[in-house]
Amino acid sequence: MKDILKLIRSRRSVREFEADEVTGSMVDDLLEAARWAPSGLNNQPWKFIVVKDASTIKEISCHTKYKHVIAGAPLLIAVYLDKDKMYNYMKDVQAIGACIQNMLLVAHDKGLGAVWIGEILNRAGEVDEILGAGRMLELMAVVAIGHPAPGKRTSSREPISKVTFLENINTPYK
Amino acid sequence: MKDILKLIRSRRSVREFEADEVTGSMVDDLLEAARWAPSGLNNQPWKFIVVKDASTIKEISCHTKYKHVIAGAPLLIAVYLDKDKMYNYMKDVQAIGACIQNMLLVAHDKGLGAVWIGEILNRAGEVDEILGAGRMLELMAVVAIGHPAPGKRTSSREPISKVTFLENINTPYK
Repeated sequence: MKDILKLIRSRRSVREFEADEVTGSMVDDLLEAARWAPSGLNNQPWKFIVVKDASTIKEISCHTKYKHVIAGAPLLIAVYLDKDKMYNYMKDVQAIGACIQNMLLVAHDKGLGAVWIGEILNRAGEVDEILGAGRMLELMAVVAIGHPAPGKRTSSREPISKVTFLENINTPYK
Repeated sequence: MKDILKLIRSRRSVREFEADEVTGSMVDDLLEAARWAPSGLNNQPWKFIVVKDASTIKEISCHTKYKHVIAGAPLLIAVYLDKDKMYNYMKDVQAIGACIQNMLLVAHDKGLGAVWIGEILNRAGEVDEILGAGRMLELMAVVAIGHPAPGKRTSSREPISKVTFLENINTPYK
């Protein structure tokens, strides 16, 4: 396994996948990472729906402009906020973000590729219907996962000096 | 470095710290991890204020019921949502969660201890004033960091079977 910082920095969104299946034990590891995320008061406000059925994946793909990404993935994990577990919407949504990041990091460490799709929330109602999710569940994201097709993937971030301050907002960190 | 899944599972909230300083290069690594989090449209909606000054830490500690935790930490990183960068509040808040989780994982990997404090948001206005944060910044969390004092720290999570479903919400995953 890579150095954690190297792992974090080398992770890229992967949108093109090989046809190979993601094994059950890999899926288990992704879920294991997800459930061990921190949450406020340890309320664990998440539910996951693992989707491997090709016809369900195809159906879901029709509800996002990233149709080709979803349709080409052998595995989706739909991440829901469980309103029954909720204690503070904003903090619960942060916890969901932490939980998705755990999954992405473990996927990357295993040589899988994944992409966090938020655009599909525009059609959350349709996805809920396909997956049978009731009104106490709010769709937070769909993570598309698979073995990455070859390709060069780059990304960039603002330097630390642009996003960080020291002691107060008026003093740049570096 | 540990296996990433082991790292994720063995991380605990640390609320008691030794007096030792967190070195500048460690702080840099935490920030590096934070800035490489994913965000929707790669909008990077975060700003960080690094607080090491003892009197500022003490001042901030007066605005949370976890006063002793903050007052005992040699380092705080206040995490803000930058509304100038925002494109979708909910998705931006998820990104902030991913970003905090990156910091917590790197801290743990380095043998540091940290705790994600959300309760202080009840007094965000007072913290903003201490740190000089204006109205385009919204406090998301304060992360207290240091070298962990000895102590046994346990935690637990719901089993995968309680939070996961297969293909649709009516079928348990296992």
